[in-house]
Amino acid sequence: MRTAAIVGAGPIGCSVGLALRRHGVVTYLIDTDQEAARRAEVRGAGVAEAPPQPADIAVVAVPPGQVAQVLAQHQRRGTARVYTEVSGVKVRLYQEARAQGCDLTALVAGHPVVGAGGSGPLEAREDLFEGRPWALTPTDATDTPALNCALELVALCGAVSVLLDPEAHDRAVALVSHAPHVIASLAAARLLDGHESAVRLAGQDLRDVTRTADGNLDLWTEILTANAGPVADQLDGWALQAGLLAGELREIAGAGDTVRPERLRETLRFGAAGRARIPEPWDAQRTGHASVHPSERTPT
Amino acid sequence: MRTAAIVGAGPIGCSVGLALRRHGVVTYLIDTDQEAARRAEVRGAGVAEAPPQPADIAVVAVPPGQVAQVLAQHQRRGTARVYTEVSGVKVRLYQEARAQGCDLTALVAGHPVVGAGGSGPLEAREDLFEGRPWALTPTDATDTPALNCALELVALCGAVSVLLDPEAHDRAVALVSHAPHVIASLAAARLLDGHESAVRLAGQDLRDVTRTADGNLDLWTEILTANAGPVADQLDGWALQAGLLAGELREIAGAGDTVRPERLRETLRFGAAGRARIPEPWDAQRTGHASVHPSERTPT
Repeated sequence: MRTAAIVGAGPIGCSVGLALRRHGVVTYLIDTDQEAARRAEVRGAGVAEAPPQPADIAVVAVPPGQVAQVLAQHQRRGTARVYTEVSGVKVRLYQEARAQGCDLTALVAGHPVVGAGGSGPLEAREDLFEGRPWALTPTDATDTPALNCALELVALCGAVSVLLDPEAHDRAVALVSHAPHVIASLAAARLLDGHESAVRLAGQDLRDVTRTADGNLDLWTEILTANAGPVADQLDGWALQAGLLAGELREIAGAGDTVRPERLRETLRFGAAGRARIPEPWDAQRTGHASVHPSERTPT
Repeated sequence: MRTAAIVGAGPIGCSVGLALRRHGVVTYLIDTDQEAARRAEVRGAGVAEAPPQPADIAVVAVPPGQVAQVLAQHQRRGTARVYTEVSGVKVRLYQEARAQGCDLTALVAGHPVVGAGGSGPLEAREDLFEGRPWALTPTDATDTPALNCALELVALCGAVSVLLDPEAHDRAVALVSHAPHVIASLAAARLLDGHESAVRLAGQDLRDVTRTADGNLDLWTEILTANAGPVADQLDGWALQAGLLAGELREIAGAGDTVRPERLRETLRFGAAGRARIPEPWDAQRTGHASVHPSERTPT
């Protein structure tokens, strides 16, 4: 990879620029807000102009609702030979891209898993993607050179490629990110019904469970509605399991020690097991001790 | 307060001893495991023997299932003039205390809110309770000198007393601690159904939501079944709300942009508002910036 066009000079786009420049890739920063492009240039993410010839790859990092339109626009312009984007939902993205007449052979939708939902706005940094998973969701239409280009992009950013088809990706993020975000918001929202003295007894457990409830309201509404089907499936599953647990506890409340809390014990046990499945941040794997990824540090 | 008997030399009991000794209170450490009492003595929490005369207060810090029995035992022995305990559920505790024939005029059940559910075992420290809420749940039977003695205990430990009746306490902890713990475990347990590539996309949000899922299985089963009614109420509420959100999202998935995500937006908005209601750790209030309470630091 020699050249890359970054469309959208926000924290993600800027971080991609910073990461690629470490390896000598020439990066072009494009943003409808020219001031944003200039700021990113000053930051060191690239030059604030369009590439003079088609770049090897264009990374579209604009708000989710605009991605398909912007992709189509730049494909018509010939901004790059291969295109990728970084929004959080893939099925909807490809539907819109088709509707916009995009060339799907040169498109590899993607999704770098970064950011700390509730810890304030993401900041641009060259190591933002270091050791992170970066999902790539090629379709049957995607040609192999395009996929290889995207794989190289991910590698240059220091991330780990995870290939999934678009439907599998959306179900996956519904499970590991979207539904948990709704759940965290629900946990926090329910506090509004609590008495003052009740809320005073809140401790660290609750702070942890609700941390992500501080995220950007508009962005999350957009993400969740774009992935409405898979998220609804998850929430239905939640509702069912929570209801069954409530039922068992109600029996226990009524009958005391004669009812064994089987379902509850199983949930707690599976909970510990499930938690162990969550991958450690990469530097923890390498060095053997837990450390906090730059994007996850609570702002001081 | 001049003397205190601490029954149960585990982390909580030991921490109470350390805290009280800062103020010159003579503390006696009692534990059926004499070795545990000696270790606490070496740690500086007090002397590993029973008080020669009734102590001003006895703090019973034994496993929840044993509290009532131990209270009755020590009341019969005249270990102290006033009694308190630190388990997480109050209605059940008082029921058992009555059944054991305890003198309720001298009993003030309580509950210091400490500990970081999933960050490993609690460690004894003199400042464990610093700035923390400590619920006290006197009944109509509790006499005023006993309550004042408990209030002094809490103050000497550096904590903030929060008075609640036992039922209100149990509803409160169901809301802010018990149901969230179940929810966190459920979030983690559901990962076991996810494909490997799905789980690889897990990020910080999920780590936060599930952090408490690492807690002690037996202890939590005991706590949750002891508070089964209020926790069932909470989980039924969860199930209802999760189901309603799923319904709205399913409509959106079917009808696209014609359905407005009102309930979803409201949940997210209330989530941010609810989170703002969670009290900051006390030192954050004093100094103006967020810092991590000793009991909440992730072990390095």
